[in-house]
Amino acid sequence: MTGREFFTARTVGEALVGFRPERRTAVEPVPLDGALGRVPAADVRADAPLPGFARSTVDGYAVRAADTYGASDGLPSYLDLAGAVRMGAAPTVTVTPGRCAAIPTGAVLPAGADAVVMVEYTAETMPGTVEVTRPVAPGSGVVQPDDDVAVGAVLVPAGRPLRAPDLGLLAAAGVTTVDVHARPRVAILSTGDEVVPSDTKELTVGQVRDATASALAGLIREAGGDPVYAGIVPDDEGALRSALTDALGAADLVVVSAGSSVGARDETAAAVSALGEVWCHGLALKPGKPTMLAECAGVPLIGLPGNPLSALVVFRLLGVPLVRRLAGCDRPPPAPRVRARLARDLPSAAGRLDVVQVTVTEDPDGTCRAEPLFGPSALLSVLARADGYLVVPEPATGLDAGTDVEVVLHA
Amino acid sequence: MTGREFFTARTVGEALVGFRPERRTAVEPVPLDGALGRVPAADVRADAPLPGFARSTVDGYAVRAADTYGASDGLPSYLDLAGAVRMGAAPTVTVTPGRCAAIPTGAVLPAGADAVVMVEYTAETMPGTVEVTRPVAPGSGVVQPDDDVAVGAVLVPAGRPLRAPDLGLLAAAGVTTVDVHARPRVAILSTGDEVVPSDTKELTVGQVRDATASALAGLIREAGGDPVYAGIVPDDEGALRSALTDALGAADLVVVSAGSSVGARDETAAAVSALGEVWCHGLALKPGKPTMLAECAGVPLIGLPGNPLSALVVFRLLGVPLVRRLAGCDRPPPAPRVRARLARDLPSAAGRLDVVQVTVTEDPDGTCRAEPLFGPSALLSVLARADGYLVVPEPATGLDAGTDVEVVLHA
Repeated sequence: MTGREFFTARTVGEALVGFRPERRTAVEPVPLDGALGRVPAADVRADAPLPGFARSTVDGYAVRAADTYGASDGLPSYLDLAGAVRMGAAPTVTVTPGRCAAIPTGAVLPAGADAVVMVEYTAETMPGTVEVTRPVAPGSGVVQPDDDVAVGAVLVPAGRPLRAPDLGLLAAAGVTTVDVHARPRVAILSTGDEVVPSDTKELTVGQVRDATASALAGLIREAGGDPVYAGIVPDDEGALRSALTDALGAADLVVVSAGSSVGARDETAAAVSALGEVWCHGLALKPGKPTMLAECAGVPLIGLPGNPLSALVVFRLLGVPLVRRLAGCDRPPPAPRVRARLARDLPSAAGRLDVVQVTVTEDPDGTCRAEPLFGPSALLSVLARADGYLVVPEPATGLDAGTDVEVVLHA
Repeated sequence: MTGREFFTARTVGEALVGFRPERRTAVEPVPLDGALGRVPAADVRADAPLPGFARSTVDGYAVRAADTYGASDGLPSYLDLAGAVRMGAAPTVTVTPGRCAAIPTGAVLPAGADAVVMVEYTAETMPGTVEVTRPVAPGSGVVQPDDDVAVGAVLVPAGRPLRAPDLGLLAAAGVTTVDVHARPRVAILSTGDEVVPSDTKELTVGQVRDATASALAGLIREAGGDPVYAGIVPDDEGALRSALTDALGAADLVVVSAGSSVGARDETAAAVSALGEVWCHGLALKPGKPTMLAECAGVPLIGLPGNPLSALVVFRLLGVPLVRRLAGCDRPPPAPRVRARLARDLPSAAGRLDVVQVTVTEDPDGTCRAEPLFGPSALLSVLARADGYLVVPEPATGLDAGTDVEVVLHA
């Protein structure tokens, strides 16, 4: 029982800023209908203006604004009705001085008109004559041909995952496919003599099913990646190095879920050191201290702590941003957060980032209360029960009950 | 140009509480690997305890705690090393009084031992003899067989979408498939003489591509639903009624993206009234007033306003919760939010919920600033440019610049 560890420890902030591999996934075209959440590789620009024609924004009458000046309830302007504009078609009517045309919301402003009076401020008291009781300015009630989008304007920017309204704007512009970064392939390599596949029906004493791999696959999918199970290898440096070599050759990111014993961790560290450059071994983070970040022939690698809860905390903090960056995402979507009052004192060591799992309950007055979940960090049930986590920053030596905290919610 | 509308208006709050169709989708088994975000139809319980055996949480020595009482740096306890426990296997060693066994993190506590001393508080100064310099209490350094999960305990609850850690816990328990609600099929029916499919290359004057359907499909997917395009029908009550009947027969929810003109809205209202019960027609909401909620032979229906931005605001507020509820979700995940200071005055009418699109920028001091995006509500580009929205509640008559607001972020 030797092998006490000497960490070249870094803070989480240092890792987020300093460990930024250059690798990006290839670019591929996807149909609009499959583009939600995907990251455009380049700005997509409009090749025509939108809406493309002067369009009424109200139901009413297309007029020459000058014909309405001075109109009031007491002294309306009287205009001759020249006809009506139909939806979806070019107008067959022209508006000349003293005349108007009926127009529905969304229809094309007819030639000669420069404004639309809302139907609420009109009355058709005699057939063919429209009373207007409010003046309108030129442009009122009208969207100009390029008000929504001008030619050459950016419809959606590179680097930000596509959201539902983006898909609408692209559809409006007739864009049917988008060039996006491929989903990063993330290899999950599990290690440990005690670890068996999750579909193992009966365990013998001392075996545990691979919980971390399934949970990691979920986080990878949420981050826009494509998880690939690279198997379970025993605590043996040769076997590990061979499995790592295979995984590195087929993935954009390799995640090693290390065995929990110090021996397993040492073997992982030795195998990784032999294959690439270790950026850090050890984080000023609890849980999650025995974390390794490395780059092997251009493929980033994260060595996670052995216990599932720690592994997931680390992957959430460091792995998720990395998966996004591999997909070209430089404007990641914000994590859901809620402000809450801390329900009890929380001790913490200075110089270390503490990630504390909490439940969040809403009090009758609408404020939220965050209750820390304590327990050995090895317990997965703690994580499954938690609504989110809060972070005690490095300089703090703990938080008092009643402190206003921000809880990052488990999506 | 007749047909001014008489709304039976409701507030958004009333609609969320009062319009709650009973319909739920069928239950289907899915493999664990495809279960992220799906909603379990029933609590999933453990049929065996986890971890299932007394497990060491540290690297060290398994001991009888009583053998360590009084141990200190100056006066260590000396224990005979009886052997070592291997990872993943039943121990072959037994701990009797005065003896100990080397044990790695995660291994099985051997018979006779009731605690584990961390390696940091030991020294193997002579082969076969271990010095212990700190006393441990019974249970120290050990997770009991049912500490993580007891037999019969709920692994994941019904009604809450599965998150990544849930998948880990289910994997640990050997659960390989989960019974979840099917994804609700949501039919999107677009109407309007001016609307043409989004893949239309060249538009004639007055035509617009169907932007709303593509954006709605994105929101439906985010909510866990399965969007089905039910086509575009012209502003004709007969055609609309026929298309609605088809859509209602094949979907769990029908969304009608109405034409923008008052005529199109009237025809939608008439067609829906003929097929089912209208729960409300009109919301005290801006944008989004001309919204219709109905139920037709057990299938809920949402009639959306004609302009894309309004339609998406309404669907986000009312449609997304409805899709989730159809999938059995009674504990929806929280929307991402951020607190920000309002950058300028925001007028609003009392008695109406105002949804205002904003951009959010982070100032150097870490506080966020919400800048309202103004412009005709018909502009899709406003929504695509917005980072999120804020809500001015019904009683308020506006918000002053500098007010602390909560922005719901566009995911």
